[in-house]
Amino acid sequence: MDLSALASGLDTIWVVLTAAMILLMEGGFALLEAGFVRQKNAVSIIMKVFVDITFGALIFYFFGFGLMYGKDVSGLIGTSGFMMGGDLTHIKLSISNDTYWLFQCAFVIAVISIVSGAVAERINFHAYILYTVAMTGFIYPIAGHWVWSAGGWLGSLGMIDFAGSAVIHAMGGFSALAAAIFIGPRIGKFSDDGTPNIVPPSNLPLASVGAFVLWFGWFGFNSGSTLSATNSSIGHIAVTTMLAAAAGGATCILFTMLRYRKADPPMVINGSLAGLVGITAGCAFVSDGAAIFIGAVCGIAMVFATEFLESKRIDDPVGAFAVHGVSGSIGTLAVGLFAKPELAASVGQGYSGLFYGGGWSLLGVQALGLIIVAVWGFALTWIALKLIGRLAPVRVSRDEELVGLDVGIHGVPAYSQEHDFIELNKLKSR
Amino acid sequence: MDLSALASGLDTIWVVLTAAMILLMEGGFALLEAGFVRQKNAVSIIMKVFVDITFGALIFYFFGFGLMYGKDVSGLIGTSGFMMGGDLTHIKLSISNDTYWLFQCAFVIAVISIVSGAVAERINFHAYILYTVAMTGFIYPIAGHWVWSAGGWLGSLGMIDFAGSAVIHAMGGFSALAAAIFIGPRIGKFSDDGTPNIVPPSNLPLASVGAFVLWFGWFGFNSGSTLSATNSSIGHIAVTTMLAAAAGGATCILFTMLRYRKADPPMVINGSLAGLVGITAGCAFVSDGAAIFIGAVCGIAMVFATEFLESKRIDDPVGAFAVHGVSGSIGTLAVGLFAKPELAASVGQGYSGLFYGGGWSLLGVQALGLIIVAVWGFALTWIALKLIGRLAPVRVSRDEELVGLDVGIHGVPAYSQEHDFIELNKLKSR
Amino acid sequence: MDLSALASGLDTIWVVLTAAMILLMEGGFALLEAGFVRQKNAVSIIMKVFVDITFGALIFYFFGFGLMYGKDVSGLIGTSGFMMGGDLTHIKLSISNDTYWLFQCAFVIAVISIVSGAVAERINFHAYILYTVAMTGFIYPIAGHWVWSAGGWLGSLGMIDFAGSAVIHAMGGFSALAAAIFIGPRIGKFSDDGTPNIVPPSNLPLASVGAFVLWFGWFGFNSGSTLSATNSSIGHIAVTTMLAAAAGGATCILFTMLRYRKADPPMVINGSLAGLVGITAGCAFVSDGAAIFIGAVCGIAMVFATEFLESKRIDDPVGAFAVHGVSGSIGTLAVGLFAKPELAASVGQGYSGLFYGGGWSLLGVQALGLIIVAVWGFALTWIALKLIGRLAPVRVSRDEELVGLDVGIHGVPAYSQEHDFIELNKLKSR
Repeated sequence: MDLSALASGLDTIWVVLTAAMILLMEGGFALLEAGFVRQKNAVSIIMKVFVDITFGALIFYFFGFGLMYGKDVSGLIGTSGFMMGGDLTHIKLSISNDTYWLFQCAFVIAVISIVSGAVAERINFHAYILYTVAMTGFIYPIAGHWVWSAGGWLGSLGMIDFAGSAVIHAMGGFSALAAAIFIGPRIGKFSDDGTPNIVPPSNLPLASVGAFVLWFGWFGFNSGSTLSATNSSIGHIAVTTMLAAAAGGATCILFTMLRYRKADPPMVINGSLAGLVGITAGCAFVSDGAAIFIGAVCGIAMVFATEFLESKRIDDPVGAFAVHGVSGSIGTLAVGLFAKPELAASVGQGYSGLFYGGGWSLLGVQALGLIIVAVWGFALTWIALKLIGRLAPVRVSRDEELVGLDVGIHGVPAYSQEHDFIELNKLKSR
Repeated sequence: MDLSALASGLDTIWVVLTAAMILLMEGGFALLEAGFVRQKNAVSIIMKVFVDITFGALIFYFFGFGLMYGKDVSGLIGTSGFMMGGDLTHIKLSISNDTYWLFQCAFVIAVISIVSGAVAERINFHAYILYTVAMTGFIYPIAGHWVWSAGGWLGSLGMIDFAGSAVIHAMGGFSALAAAIFIGPRIGKFSDDGTPNIVPPSNLPLASVGAFVLWFGWFGFNSGSTLSATNSSIGHIAVTTMLAAAAGGATCILFTMLRYRKADPPMVINGSLAGLVGITAGCAFVSDGAAIFIGAVCGIAMVFATEFLESKRIDDPVGAFAVHGVSGSIGTLAVGLFAKPELAASVGQGYSGLFYGGGWSLLGVQALGLIIVAVWGFALTWIALKLIGRLAPVRVSRDEELVGLDVGIHGVPAYSQEHDFIELNKLKSR
Repeated sequence: MDLSALASGLDTIWVVLTAAMILLMEGGFALLEAGFVRQKNAVSIIMKVFVDITFGALIFYFFGFGLMYGKDVSGLIGTSGFMMGGDLTHIKLSISNDTYWLFQCAFVIAVISIVSGAVAERINFHAYILYTVAMTGFIYPIAGHWVWSAGGWLGSLGMIDFAGSAVIHAMGGFSALAAAIFIGPRIGKFSDDGTPNIVPPSNLPLASVGAFVLWFGWFGFNSGSTLSATNSSIGHIAVTTMLAAAAGGATCILFTMLRYRKADPPMVINGSLAGLVGITAGCAFVSDGAAIFIGAVCGIAMVFATEFLESKRIDDPVGAFAVHGVSGSIGTLAVGLFAKPELAASVGQGYSGLFYGGGWSLLGVQALGLIIVAVWGFALTWIALKLIGRLAPVRVSRDEELVGLDVGIHGVPAYSQEHDFIELNKLKSR
């Protein structure tokens, strides 16, 4: 046993364990989304999460990873690493390439799961599978290449996105927005005069527990993004993650008490998640105080964004854009304001934000990068859904939507009782 | 890469991962409590868990940590470390101070979550927020300082509480008892003649899964309390934790079969948790056999304590006192009986229990410390609720309680079906 | 701090953390099984999981571990290590023996949990406790000794079962089959003419989340089986585990869309699990491509196995045999086909499969071992249930089954609403 073998083993278990934590977030997404949608669509949304994790992993293995982390061409695209083959010597990590793949795979599955919430209760299942292929095999890997890959053009400009406020959340959130607009609101969500109707979550306990599972996974998401267990930022990252989440949730408790005269459970759930999204870009670079500030701002912004979308008759059943798109954008920009040079130095970066004497340059490149990935996600999602529409209907039929996708598409309700058993078999025996 | 950087990295990821596991216990508390209460209060209890984790973290960051682990004055109180600032050189750990904060933060959130169960279904939400501030900002940190901080007077006397049977569970449990008495029983829990009525848990599958999540988190709780990954006790701690939990649960299965002629699910759930609570003080110091014994005793004691509280017309909806208060007390005293010198030595302690030739001194100091923290928790909780009562009603109105806190306070039911959606919007359109 | 202490600490936390992940799988089993059975039996199945984890741990501590990993006699049985006592010097690991016990304890609990699903909704609770004692104290430890213990005869022949496709899953799955046949189908599952009736799962969201929790735990199961954090296979193991699970699930999505004209949620859930079971034997030894192939084959085989059992009037409510028995068998044999010499070498094994020039010998020994453990599990389970039948009825009464085991045996329903509270207390007051 020598020191380097030990160090490499340590890094490997760190990345494997944190990747597993991120993958458990799919259980969190399933809980959150099944809890937020109506009972008649609770299974259908979970089946989409199964598509995310199964098709997502395979497509990323065959195509996505190579485009994202393969040998760079012109800062635009990767060209090796498909099925883990070809030249990957430019990836200089202490962990093996396949361990690295696993961690990145957990990320891409999170991205597509963000979109799944926005199209809940009405997307056609075939279309969703095709969209998953597009997102995990092309849309996300390309954007990710630009920011995170050796040679990617936005990364080369100096854009900082430690664990993905921009690449994962803003990109995913704007993709979710495009999909929600493209596919249109659920039947009954808006009255003919445009006033929004209340669609009460079918199972708030499940949704809440989903948030706690996501919170747990986020420690893997952010701290694990060091990709090395001896990175001295790990503790600080975990602390800023915790504080931002707490600030997002606490702010939403107080803010909804002021605004709606009650602490609003769905807003509190999403407020904590908004805090987590917001800190994801800067978790390693900002101070504790900045983390609390970022989390609080994201919590409040999420409330306004939710109201804004409703006022525009855009139907995003779980608040995917308000949580991921808006907070991801805030978090990306916040790096340009709050990045502390001494913290950035500890992870080998040389930048500092506007408030720490770094001037406008970092903020500028963050804004540029944010706009690029947001527009990319929005536009490519729109185009993908357009193309998919030529192969399969993008939306379920009116009848399927009214009866619910669980029975309408998957032939089984989420929740069954004894009498359902008797009824079903009576029907069968006719 | 040198050896000490590696060791420090190893310790850091150990503490971050175990802290994340403890924080996931909030998901476990949410499941357990939402499952145990009535359906009409399932969201309200989860909102309290959100208060625990959000306000708890922030208040502990601003105030609690400094009072608990700051520079000691007279063994009574800490005076630095507020917002992680000031002199913390007396904390001599291989991990950074902020990593240490995260772990301790996970602990304080567990404490307040213990109390949340005892006041379920009837506490006013504003009052609960204020109580959370009191507990996480003052009550717990002071007690914790006495036992765990460098210079704390109970710790200096030789009190041993490895992972918190006394400081976390007995203190939290007696606080829960005070709160349950102060606030009074739920409407309908006791008939006019004082006989208790059955309040069946609304969702036992959720409650059970909550117990498994808590069990998982407990490995982080107990093993992680070494704060160093090279502590040779880690394996032993995990084993005694497992055995005590198994003994608590198995004993409750058999004992309730004898006593009630059926294996009683809520008692089995709480029996496993009682075993976990009981081993928390001594997990590093007692033998496997002692762990099994402690777990079994805690399981049975929990059953009797539950019955005792009912007979006294004290309403503790989830059994917080029976699980945490009683087993925490047993576990604290058990250290005085079962601490093995060779195990205590391995974590740098020099004591041994009554059964291992250590005489009565350790048992005496354990009993003293237990009484102190229990009385402290009980009394300060009573005083806090008294003071809070001047600012806001401590209990919800009769109407809110009857309709349920979910709709009454938070404006949304835990579980909604399609027809609720239609009804709600009919109401809205009037 | 020296290097070896660091290495030992690293291995210890790796095994403790992965053991905790495996133990969390009990929460996954509870969710999966409570979701798949009818509402009236949701608590009773979870109470069985509590029996698994509580009695399982204690019996394995007192008896099972010694028989499995104690000093070998004739390749057949272990003879030391009961209550962790006696000579265990033949276990040459960098972790302590009790840490090793914890990991193995998590395994045995998984085995008995496999069987719990097959006898759901009809087994007598007393009989189940006795069967748990038999399985965790004797049946599994003996089979495990043959394959995994130093000196075990199947292991000595060269049988490879890295993390237990054979010992855990095939053995457990064939035991489940025996138990399902022995105890007979649920009332109403088959009409008098033998046609199967549909028993819709009571709570598919819970079942789905159970699958995600199991998936998470499986990273601990497979990667943790290295028992050392510096084993260079860990990353590869995690990757093959991920790919096989993804392939099992994706295949079931597509295959059930072809076969039933709808993506069938229970099949998709079980398809992912089938992929995980199938890769468990070979995760360290097979290529990524082979992992995808194994996962896909297991997914499809699970669908056919489910249909086959129904056609034979065998009632396995959660598909325990189809998932664990069939995929465990496929996975065990697949090692004989796909084991790559260079991968096997990295974990200190010298074999290679048929497709890598190893000839038929490895495949032969895999087939032999598989038959042995499958027959052992089936036969011993049958014998155990026969013997248990002399002490207690193996099956609940007809009335208990019709009313459901929750109320019938445990005296409490899984889900209660306000009016149940009122009704219960009216009954009580008569």
